[in-house]
Amino acid sequence: MLKKRKKAGDFVESSRKRIEKDIEYIGNITATPGNGCTRFSYTEEDRKVRDYLLNIFKDLDLDVSIDAVGNIRAKYKGEEELPSIMIGSHIDTVKNGGKFDGVVGVITALETLRVIKEKNIKIKRPIELIIFAEEEGSNFGVTMLGSKYLIGYLKKEDLKEIKNDQEVSAYDMIKNFDLRIEEEDQKIISKSEVECMIETHVEQGGILDTENIPVGIVDAIAGMKTCKVLIKGTSNHAGSTPMDLRQDPMTGAAEIILGIEKLAKEEALDTTVGTVGKIFSKPNSTNVIPEQIEFYIDTRDVKPDGLDFMIKEIKKLIEKVCKKRKLESEFKVIGKNESVVLSEEIKGTIEKVAKEKDYKYKKINSGAVHDAAMLAEILDVGMIFVPSIKGKSHCPQELTKYEDIKQGCDLLIDSVVELCNK
Amino acid sequence: MLKKRKKAGDFVESSRKRIEKDIEYIGNITATPGNGCTRFSYTEEDRKVRDYLLNIFKDLDLDVSIDAVGNIRAKYKGEEELPSIMIGSHIDTVKNGGKFDGVVGVITALETLRVIKEKNIKIKRPIELIIFAEEEGSNFGVTMLGSKYLIGYLKKEDLKEIKNDQEVSAYDMIKNFDLRIEEEDQKIISKSEVECMIETHVEQGGILDTENIPVGIVDAIAGMKTCKVLIKGTSNHAGSTPMDLRQDPMTGAAEIILGIEKLAKEEALDTTVGTVGKIFSKPNSTNVIPEQIEFYIDTRDVKPDGLDFMIKEIKKLIEKVCKKRKLESEFKVIGKNESVVLSEEIKGTIEKVAKEKDYKYKKINSGAVHDAAMLAEILDVGMIFVPSIKGKSHCPQELTKYEDIKQGCDLLIDSVVELCNK
Repeated sequence: MLKKRKKAGDFVESSRKRIEKDIEYIGNITATPGNGCTRFSYTEEDRKVRDYLLNIFKDLDLDVSIDAVGNIRAKYKGEEELPSIMIGSHIDTVKNGGKFDGVVGVITALETLRVIKEKNIKIKRPIELIIFAEEEGSNFGVTMLGSKYLIGYLKKEDLKEIKNDQEVSAYDMIKNFDLRIEEEDQKIISKSEVECMIETHVEQGGILDTENIPVGIVDAIAGMKTCKVLIKGTSNHAGSTPMDLRQDPMTGAAEIILGIEKLAKEEALDTTVGTVGKIFSKPNSTNVIPEQIEFYIDTRDVKPDGLDFMIKEIKKLIEKVCKKRKLESEFKVIGKNESVVLSEEIKGTIEKVAKEKDYKYKKINSGAVHDAAMLAEILDVGMIFVPSIKGKSHCPQELTKYEDIKQGCDLLIDSVVELCNK
Repeated sequence: MLKKRKKAGDFVESSRKRIEKDIEYIGNITATPGNGCTRFSYTEEDRKVRDYLLNIFKDLDLDVSIDAVGNIRAKYKGEEELPSIMIGSHIDTVKNGGKFDGVVGVITALETLRVIKEKNIKIKRPIELIIFAEEEGSNFGVTMLGSKYLIGYLKKEDLKEIKNDQEVSAYDMIKNFDLRIEEEDQKIISKSEVECMIETHVEQGGILDTENIPVGIVDAIAGMKTCKVLIKGTSNHAGSTPMDLRQDPMTGAAEIILGIEKLAKEEALDTTVGTVGKIFSKPNSTNVIPEQIEFYIDTRDVKPDGLDFMIKEIKKLIEKVCKKRKLESEFKVIGKNESVVLSEEIKGTIEKVAKEKDYKYKKINSGAVHDAAMLAEILDVGMIFVPSIKGKSHCPQELTKYEDIKQGCDLLIDSVVELCNK
């Protein structure tokens, strides 16, 4: 069935088999076999996936460069020396995450280059495949470290202050991963080298799956704030300290965590979410009233008002609970990203291609933040979503059908070719 | 000033200097220098303190035996071959605990033997100094492992099922500490070898300090139940999962933890306490709704009714919260000790000696459970408390004045001599 087409790339198709082979291969490189993908940046698992992909890039004769924090860029030449079209995503995961988050964007980008090379499709602009380092923030609690460095939002000096749970700084971990962070000057990405960027990603929510739509064109990406909270009480014996003489930070933290849920669910906007996923008790002993509870809040909204409301109200909540319970507290926003409305031009191109290909698609918002949102500060950016079965993500059950990934990849290829020849 | 006295031991006094030297020496053997005492059983720190004390026992010519789980017994001969009088406590600590909890009982027992030997005080019965292994439950969440083994409440097979956070069993850890757990048969303590036991301990509550009384004679020891709770939800992305589609075990756990506090504070008896000190989130990532929260409950009461009420109501609470939030749960009592009213005879002897010595004393209950409570199943048991400044214990700020420890030791010496010659 012939569709109305305008440019090179007609009828080219990605190889579902090749995509599946790559994603499955990478999915097996995990620090937690049998319990999902755990592949933090700057670890042995990260190294193995990098080596696997760098070998493929070599075979494709791509021009590879790796920056000081480990972002990999692999360039496929265009016919003219113009700013490139950038595509890609990340290969790191959360702890016990899934094998699709991030990797889908990298492998569909790789497949795009393979198809273009194989079919010898003419493109004016170069295409750059990018693999962002440390997107998930699994090491340091700071998400999208690689793209934040690339846009200059994080400086080298900042990386010395960002530390993991073992108090190792991002700077040191990056240095120990044999990256040239000490030697290289920071190079901030610009419009003069990259024209625009498209990231393909799993939706990580349940809308596409519920509505049985294989492709989403992202309209806006939620803004996000990550906060670290310390609640300090008085450590004492769990048996001999009467209930009314306690300054127990655990029960204080519990009250705050419940309050955050109530704020996000009942008082903020419909689009607002708030989560506490990470908690530490100190000294974390059964028979000791804790001295301190440390926990982290992740709150997001595509609407800035929702996010502002949450931060303001969470601060008030912590103060109120701590005053009542005679506890001390510390509150710090350790990560933030503004919400981003994606480029009308890129969205338009993707939508036009989807219509030409007669794809069922939906314009949706992204509750998850992505590297693309960072680059949107400098470049025109678009995103293609493929469905997450039952909306599950950041867990071993994360699943996207390979036929959907293939369809997303086909949409990416034609959109990229279109943009390359504009 | 002569007091009315009846037996040997008149005017003998313990050496405050010697007691202080020993406690300070042992206090410095910690895995967390600068942040209190962390000395778990079966570790390098435990070994160092054992070696220090075993050397002293050798100099005192004590008859030392170490059982399969590491309980040390050091016997000082009496004039007759009668069941011995046992004194002692433990040398392990909680994480970031104090230097007095446990060690005061061991060192006052040691000082008792030193004084009796030095002054050549005649005693009919032998005296046995005991150091119980793994009292705090710091390794496995099971308190008083050593004394529970000694009374046969824990069998060797049970030790294979009891595991630490790294899934290493108590049995394996004990075996690797070069103890003869594989070779030796379990020997349960009996009245035919030990007549009675006195444990000296810091109060770990604030009554003696507040009332400015240097010595407490323990009337009853609180019963205790330790419970492990798992709350299982659905792990998912913190950004893209709407609030009303979540099955978040963290907020469920928070609601339960607050409920436990309310039960202990407002609904159970005046003497009831309930604590959650230990918590783990899985996978413990900032941007992931957790899959599971694991936490531990420590609830205690000198009155059995209070404890029964807590367990019944906590179970109901967990069920109610999990039903409402569509979460799964597991609840298990992993440790329990009945409340114990101590021996009238031993209490009477200590009180009589205190009166003879003109000591200000108070009969009090113990909110903390002790090895002595375990042995009370088989032997007549008594306890002497010395004050905890501001009631602080299980924390680096734990403090007991050496003059109070000396006075407690003097009371112990005369009580032991009295019991030896009864």
